Order: sequence, then C-alpha cells, then structure tokens
Amino acid sequence: MTWNIYLSGEIHTDWREQIKQGCSERALDVSFSSAVTDHEASDAAGDVLGPEQDNFWRDHKSAKVNAIRTSTLIGRCDIAIVRFGDKYKQWNAAFDAGQCAALGKPYITLHDEALIHPLKEVDAAALAWASDVEQVVSILAYITSQQ
Amino acid sequence: MTWNIYLSGEIHTDWREQIKQGCSERALDVSFSSAVTDHEASDAAGDVLGPEQDNFWRDHKSAKVNAIRTSTLIGRCDIAIVRFGDKYKQWNAAFDAGQCAALGKPYITLHDEALIHPLKEVDAAALAWASDVEQVVSILAYITSQQ
Amino acid sequence: MTWNIYLSGEIHTDWREQIKQGCSERALDVSFSSAVTDHEASDAAGDVLGPEQDNFWRDHKSAKVNAIRTSTLIGRCDIAIVRFGDKYKQWNAAFDAGQCAALGKPYITLHDEALIHPLKEVDAAALAWASDVEQVVSILAYITSQQ
Amino acid sequence: MTWNIYLSGEIHTDWREQIKQGCSERALDVSFSSAVTDHEASDAAGDVLGPEQDNFWRDHKSAKVNAIRTSTLIGRCDIAIVRFGDKYKQWNAAFDAGQCAALGKPYITLHDEALIHPLKEVDAAALAWASDVEQVVSILAYITSQQ
Amino acid sequence: MTWNIYLSGEIHTDWREQIKQGCSERALDVSFSSAVTDHEASDAAGDVLGPEQDNFWRDHKSAKVNAIRTSTLIGRCDIAIVRFGDKYKQWNAAFDAGQCAALGKPYITLHDEALIHPLKEVDAAALAWASDVEQVVSILAYITSQQ
Amino acid sequence: MTWNIYLSGEIHTDWREQIKQGCSERALDVSFSSAVTDHEASDAAGDVLGPEQDNFWRDHKSAKVNAIRTSTLIGRCDIAIVRFGDKYKQWNAAFDAGQCAALGKPYITLHDEALIHPLKEVDAAALAWASDVEQVVSILAYITSQQ
Amino acid sequence: MTWNIYLSGEIHTDWREQIKQGCSERALDVSFSSAVTDHEASDAAGDVLGPEQDNFWRDHKSAKVNAIRTSTLIGRCDIAIVRFGDKYKQWNAAFDAGQCAALGKPYITLHDEALIHPLKEVDAAALAWASDVEQVVSILAYITSQQ
Amino acid sequence: MTWNIYLSGEIHTDWREQIKQGCSERALDVSFSSAVTDHEASDAAGDVLGPEQDNFWRDHKSAKVNAIRTSTLIGRCDIAIVRFGDKYKQWNAAFDAGQCAALGKPYITLHDEALIHPLKEVDAAALAWASDVEQVVSILAYITSQQ
Repeated sequence: MTWNIYLSGEIHTDWREQIKQGCSERALDVSFSSAVTDHEASDAAGDVLGPEQDNFWRDHKSAKVNAIRTSTLIGRCDIAIVRFGDKYKQWNAAFDAGQCAALGKPYITLHDEALIHPLKEVDAAALAWASDVEQVVSILAYITSQQ
Repeated sequence: MTWNIYLSGEIHTDWREQIKQGCSERALDVSFSSAVTDHEASDAAGDVLGPEQDNFWRDHKSAKVNAIRTSTLIGRCDIAIVRFGDKYKQWNAAFDAGQCAALGKPYITLHDEALIHPLKEVDAAALAWASDVEQVVSILAYITSQQ
Repeated sequence: MTWNIYLSGEIHTDWREQIKQGCSERALDVSFSSAVTDHEASDAAGDVLGPEQDNFWRDHKSAKVNAIRTSTLIGRCDIAIVRFGDKYKQWNAAFDAGQCAALGKPYITLHDEALIHPLKEVDAAALAWASDVEQVVSILAYITSQQ
Repeated sequence: MTWNIYLSGEIHTDWREQIKQGCSERALDVSFSSAVTDHEASDAAGDVLGPEQDNFWRDHKSAKVNAIRTSTLIGRCDIAIVRFGDKYKQWNAAFDAGQCAALGKPYITLHDEALIHPLKEVDAAALAWASDVEQVVSILAYITSQQ
Repeated sequence: MTWNIYLSGEIHTDWREQIKQGCSERALDVSFSSAVTDHEASDAAGDVLGPEQDNFWRDHKSAKVNAIRTSTLIGRCDIAIVRFGDKYKQWNAAFDAGQCAALGKPYITLHDEALIHPLKEVDAAALAWASDVEQVVSILAYITSQQ
Repeated sequence: MTWNIYLSGEIHTDWREQIKQGCSERALDVSFSSAVTDHEASDAAGDVLGPEQDNFWRDHKSAKVNAIRTSTLIGRCDIAIVRFGDKYKQWNAAFDAGQCAALGKPYITLHDEALIHPLKEVDAAALAWASDVEQVVSILAYITSQQ
Repeated sequence: MTWNIYLSGEIHTDWREQIKQGCSERALDVSFSSAVTDHEASDAAGDVLGPEQDNFWRDHKSAKVNAIRTSTLIGRCDIAIVRFGDKYKQWNAAFDAGQCAALGKPYITLHDEALIHPLKEVDAAALAWASDVEQVVSILAYITSQQ
Repeated sequence: MTWNIYLSGEIHTDWREQIKQGCSERALDVSFSSAVTDHEASDAAGDVLGPEQDNFWRDHKSAKVNAIRTSTLIGRCDIAIVRFGDKYKQWNAAFDAGQCAALGKPYITLHDEALIHPLKEVDAAALAWASDVEQVVSILAYITSQQ
C-alpha cells in the first residue's frame, strides 16, 4: 500500500526535496504531492484568464486556480506535513492545517522551537510536531513500514 | 431567526465590541461567540490540570482546552468573521478559516489592504473581504434583515 | 412542529406573497425564507465593500454576499420551492435546485407546462412539479397538517 | 496521478472535443467523462422502459436514466468544466454546478462575457471563469503538471 | 429533553394510538410523527397536481409527495418504531428501516413471531425487536426516563 | 472505467445470470456483486459461530454475518438493481433499496406490473423501473457505453 | 447557550453527582446526560422483550436497548466526560470515547495517574485529561463562561 | 475484489499470524493491516521527536504517532477484527471498535466466553462474536468467496 503525503507550507527552502530524498533512501512506499511551489508561477496562475488592474483580483484569481489543485490533493492525501518557516506569515499553511483538522486528515507540523507559542492551536490538532526533516522521515518510515 | 456569528482572530483591539455595538444599534437578530479573548486566561486555560515544565506542553494543554470551546462554537455558527491584524502571526485565525472552509461555513475576512497578498488563499475561500468594521456590520445587516 | 420553506427563483411576480397568503389562510405551521428579492439591492449587495470598475467583479462580490444568506437558509430549510418563470434564464434557481439535490433536501418545482423539456433534469430530482401556486399551497397543507 | 474531468453543459458545439484535443496535445494526465451528448439518444434514454403518452413522463423517465450516469460521474470527478452557450436555457448545466458546489467539487465555468450577469451566482461558487477553450486547457495543464 | 419518535409501517390497526396512549399514561417526554396514515388520502396525495391515466404515474406522484413528509420526519426523529403486520407486503416499512440503518438512526421493529425469518435482515440492523405494543412503551419509558 | 453493479433481492429465479449474460454479450465494462444467493448457505451463515436453540438468534447471527458482506458491497457499488418477485415478502430487497436511497446510490427496480402499487414508495426513490431483464441490460448498456 | 455534557463510564462512585453539584454551585449553563447508571436496571434493560436462557443474548438485548439511549445522547452532546475507575474493565467507556473521536465530539478523560499507560490511545484523542472532579468542573466553567 | 481486514487489539499471542495463515491456506482474496505490534517499538514511536521527562507526554507523543497509522488503516479497511485477551485492559481495542461503530465499519469481536458481560456494549455493535481464530477465518471465507 502506497501512502500519499501532502507537503504544505513554506516554499523558500528545499525541505520538500529533503523529505523526498530521505524517504527514497529508505525505500518507503510513499508518494508526494503539494501546491505549485514555483512562487512566480503560483502568483500568475490565473493570469491566463485575463489581466486584472486591481491586485486583489489578480491574487484572487490565482489563489482560486491554485485551490483547484490543493483542495483535490489534500482530499486525496493520507498524511499532510505542514511546514512553517521563520519568515513570512504562511497563513496558507495554517489554512491547510485547518482544513485537514476539519476533514479528519492526520497532519504533522514542522517548525522550529521559536514558533511553539504562536502555533499552539495548529500544533494542538496535529498528531506530531517535528523540528527537523530527519524526524519527519523517521516518523514516515515508522508509520509506513514498521510491522 | 437568530443568526449565530463567530468572531475569530486578533485579540489586541476592540473590533469585536465595535461589531457587537454596530449590530446592536441596528437591532439585528444576531448572537455572537468567540474564543476566550482574555490573553492571559487563554494561555493558562490548561493550568488547572497541573503544572508543566516544558513550554510546549503548557501551550499544548491550554490550546486543547480552548479547542473544546472553539470547535463547538465554530460548529454551531452560521457565519464567521475572521480578523487579521498588522502584528502577530495569528495562525489560529487562518486555522479557523481553514476549518470553516472544509465545513462549508461561510466566512468574511477583516483585514487591511496591506495583507491582501499573504492572505490570498484565505480570502479566496471567503465569501467577502471587509477592510473595516462598518463594512462587516453593513453586510450582516443586509444578510439578516433585508427582504 | 414548524416546517421551514425556502422560496427560490423568479423575482418578477408576486408568487412568494401568494404562497405565504395561501398558507396563512390555511393556518399552516410554516415559516418562509428566501434570497433578497429586491433586485437592485441584491445586485448592489457587495457595493459597501468598495467600488469595482469591472462588472464581473461587482457581480462577483454581490453574488458572494448573497450566497452567505442563501447557503445558510437552504441548509436550514425542510422543503424548497423552486420557481422558473417564462423570461430570464434563472440559472440561480437551477443552481439552488442542484444544491438541494446534492444535500438531500426535498424540493418542488413551480413552472408552466412550456418549460417541461428544458427543465427535465431539474424536475427529475424534484419530489413534485406544480404548475400553479394553489397546487403548492395544497401540497404544503397536506404535508404539514394531514394526519 | 490521473485527474478526472467532468464536462457538463452545452452540446451543440464541439467544445468537448477541443478540450480533449488540447489536453492530448499537451500530453496531460487527464481522463474525461460527461453526460450522453447525442441529443436524440439522451431524450430517448428511457424509451426502452416502455412508451409514454404524456411528454412530461417521457422526459422524466429519460432524465432519470441519464441521472444514473451523471450523478455517478460527477461523484467520481476531480474537476468539472461547466459550459453555457448563447442559446437554450441549459438549466441542467446550472443544476450540475449546484451539485458540485454542495459536494465541494471544484468547477470552472466556460461562457462568454455576455452571460456574466445572469450567471453571477454560478460563477461565485466556481473556482475559475474561462471565456474560451484554450484558457480551460491552460488551467488544466497548470493544475495537473506544474511542479 | 423531548424524544422524537417516528412510527413507520402498517396502517390497518390502531397500534400508533396504543403507543401514544401508553406513553401518555406514563407521562413520557416524547413526541410522535408518521407518514399520513389515512390510506385514501395517502394514495391521492399527488392528485392535486393533475390527473394521471396511468396508475404507475398516479402512484409515483403520490409516493413522492408523501416522501417530502416522511424523509423530513425520519431525518428529524431520534428513534423509529417499524411495524410489520400479518397482511400486505409493507415494503415501505422495510424501506424506511433501510433508510434508518444507513442514516444511523436507531429503530425498533414490532412484529409477530411468525415474521422472524422473512424479517431477519431488518431485525439484524434494529436495536430491538418487540412483539407487542406494551413492550415498545416499556422500552421507550426506560430509554427516556430511567436515571 | 468499470461500473460496479449490485444485484439485490429475489433468489429463486436466474435473473442475475440473465443480466450477467446480457451484459457479457454486449461486452459492457461492468462487474457484479450480490449477497450470497445460495439460500441454505445464507441461512446457515452464522452457524460456524456456535449452535442456537432459538430460531430468532440463529437467524440474527446469520443475518449479521451476511450484513458484513452486503453493507460493504452496497457501499462500493455504483448502481443497484433491486428485484422483487411474485412470491415471498423480500423485505430485505426493500431494506437494501432504503439504504441505497439514504446513501444516494442510484438504483433500478425490477418487478412486474402487478407490484406497482405496493412498491410505490420504493419506486419513487428509484431512478428507473424495469419490468424485464432485457430492459435492465439495455439501460446498463446505455449508461456505461453511449457517447 | 446551554452546553450539553455527556457523562460516560464508571458507575460505582458518585463522580457524576459531584460534577453536577460543582457546576450547579458555579451556576454554569450546562445540562447533563448519561447512560442508565442503575447497574441492575441497565443489565435488565432488554428483559421486557422476553426471557433468554443464554447469557450472551440477555446481555446482547440489554446492551442494544441501552445503545438506543446512549447513541442518541452522545450524538446530541457538545462535550463528553469519560471516566475510568481503578476496578473493572470499562470497555464501554473506551468504546464511547472511540465513537466521540470518530464523530469529532470533544471529550475529556477522567482517571488516575496509574492508568496513564493503558489509556494512552484514548487520552491521545481526548482534548484534556483530568485526574479529579474539581479539574473537570473548572474546565467546564472556563469553557462555558469565560469571556 | 480484495477485502481489506484490519486486525485490532491484543498483541501478546500470535492470533494475527493464525488468521493470516488460515486465510492463506484457503487462498482468500484478503489483505491485512494493523497497528505496529512490536510493543517496545510502539511505546517508543514518538521518541525520535525528542525525549520527555514526564511519562504522560512520552506516551502521548507515541500514541499520536501510532494514531496516524491506525486511523488511516481503519479508515481504509472493509472489516475489522477486534481481539480482547484475558489479561490487560486493552482499552485501545474497545476504542478502535467505537471508531468502527461510528464510521459504520463492520467489525467482528474475538474473545473468550468469560468476557461476554464486560464486552456487551462492544459486542452489541459488532456484526459477529467469534470465540476462536478458526471461526474468524471461516466467516472471512464465507463473506469473501461464497457465491
């Protein structure tokens, strides 16, 4: 059985690649999905539908096009990993976590100790908090391959 | 028919009181609920269950006690107002919005224009974006009392 | 027990008033709700949130504000009456009927014989087709007060 | 991962074929489904169950047989494309959109600018509005293959 | 707290009245609902919508009008009592029981010992089988008033 | 795409085999499932769990073991065919139909004209009534292979 | 707003009365429900339906009659308190907790420190673990009356 | 069609292996899943996330990591077998059974006659009670391969 893992959140470091590589090295039976992580492409996702003068509507159209993808992939995943970085607000990561919580999808948060207090509500509904990528890979290895 | 309005998010200004007052002045048939907004009380919500040495677990216990209240009230509300302020990360507000989205609860975001870009995913699933309290009250008046 | 009746669709004739009056004359234990039926107010529902230059976005904002109301009222109703008139496309009425069908809410269509063919999919998921208001009132009387 | 796309609505032009061809040229990992689009066959879907003298019941039987197919395919799809043409009322397209909205299925509308106002409720619950087939194909390409 | 009891099935004896009377004598906090039990009125429920030449469609229209009532009342009940008599097929009673089973509504069957074998699937999903009205009343008394 | 068809009801004639053969001759992309149709084996399904002196409990145990199978297969099917014969009460068939109705599974009834009146509630929630096997096969052919 | 509290588990001490009294002293807006806690009455709940020779079936009938009550009350509650005592296995308490977890009902466990290890799965899905009644009352006071 | 069987409960005897072997000997089309059954590994499941001084939190972290696995596998299974042994409290087995009951997943309990009374609530919601492994295998053979 293949486990579908959705990787949500911060897009400025290569944490997704590290998780994929770590799982690959352990030959775990997992597949990965995520939002479009090319920042410019993501911001421009709705541009093909026509130009907008108002930034709100340009963002709105792109965010909705992206939601077609993310809501489908979140709906299909078995486990989500939700990553919060030091910079930026990453409200979309917390938003994804809220969806997972309401849908009963188990998720693991990945963030530094410095973010414990502001993330306490998000962590309270998570099934694990990891502070580095290796922990995430170890948990995935345990869940998917331990007898 | 009474409309139940859940007020989520920022707790450092009196926006909740302003909305309540505005609705009261218009005699709208609405009731309000929210998380505990006394910051210290909220952070200490789990302390009665015993002391913790580790901050993570103190926060964790309190966040879960608060979740008993918030998940029930979100589940009962008809409309949520989700407020993002200039300061602080307010990931719990985005988390509440994600729950509303997954539960099919209509919500209205309330934030300044400066936050349009980082909130685009949260706004994309909202049914309205308001930039001041008076707009929120006007929308509630329209929804609940227009014929 | 009060039965909640949602009245969806055409807003250019007084069919809603006729149904309310007919039910009142028979002293039925029913309450009624509907979208805002003041056409101009409905089209302007989102204007309080700020002006738009593009008609698509003005309509979009207003339609979403209206959806806060309609999705809540459809979710609370026991029975919907969906009215299609001779003029206009009334896609919103068919849209409401589709929501009712997916939510398992029983609905009754109200339209002339001339519309049978184009409405066949909408009628197929309805629990009754009425061709005049008196029929609707009679059905409501039967459902809510017959022993 | 294959994405299942349901193509709903207007059957008098070859827009379905154009979308299929466009996706094929880009080698997208998508599959397509739709209602029976042979107009005469669709109207006669229930005739095998016995003749009817009354047009209402002939339409009713056929619409229900068609609903066995369409409700199953809508239930299985990841994304629906809902097309409204200039002619005809296409209430079934709006009905399908309403079902998608209630089921939480993301859908994209496809229609000319002239239809913006009458379709505002249907567009308000859509995740994108496209005005030509090439836009739809571009969005599908982005959603299903962008990294 | 009032318990809503739906009384489904056989309409040729006064078992509903006996249950109501028994609960009244014990002053139980229960309310009752059921399909229309006037056989002729029930068969004619759809006649107001226009005459039919074909018996299938006359029955069909009436059964659907009755379903508006029964599906709503079953959806609102806490407990259903499903009665099977010696005569008639009472497939509608078994149909109601199937709906209750799928919806997770607890139900009690009420039938003679002679019907044990043909009703085994219906009894298997029930939470009790009663063979007389007094047993039903006793069970309701226990459930609703025992401390 | 393979369509899963659940065949419910009467077990004394070979209607299941006729449908399978008819679909095979037309090379339809369908698979079939059903309850155990060997009457003796079905009645004895629970005997391996130990003997019972009381017929009610023997039937009860067997009906529950059979329910493990039938509830799973009904939950997985796309379409159910529910067959009522002239003899026997077949309350389990009506029970299956009720489950399908509550779960939103489309079903087709298969019965003679003589049963129209007692089956009107079951037919009212069905998407088609067929009076012979050939009609069922034709409908399945249309639904699963028409373009 | 009244909060409905379901009190599940151990019936050999007066913890339910203590919680009720504590909430009453604080004038909390709560109502309470629970399974029948009279042990003999509970074990005999099904006896009115006829005697059984086999203990399994006597227990089975009574447990199902009790389930009519408990499943309804759990379904209606906002919060469950699940109490595990030192003696007895109290599998029904863990069973209730599992139902709450799957239904998304928040629950609080109430047990001594000695039971931490065997209850770790039940505690992991709880929103709080209390070790005495006063803690439960304090949490309820905070949740239901703090501003 | 492959049937997914979840094996829940007692981990001190080789009942899982016996069921797998029995099904293998009969060449049943079944697959099996379960929690991690290596007791030490299971208790240490969360240790990789960092050490805890307090036993409650060590257990808590491990139980939640295990819940990622078990909730996913229970959600995917067709049938659960829930085993209670003579020793230990096995509240997690009763907790799993409660989840199955609330999710509508059929389950079979496996325990000795001595446990009938304390397990009556868990058995009441089960579809079968087996007292030895051979019975379980026989039931699985009947359900998955009988025609």
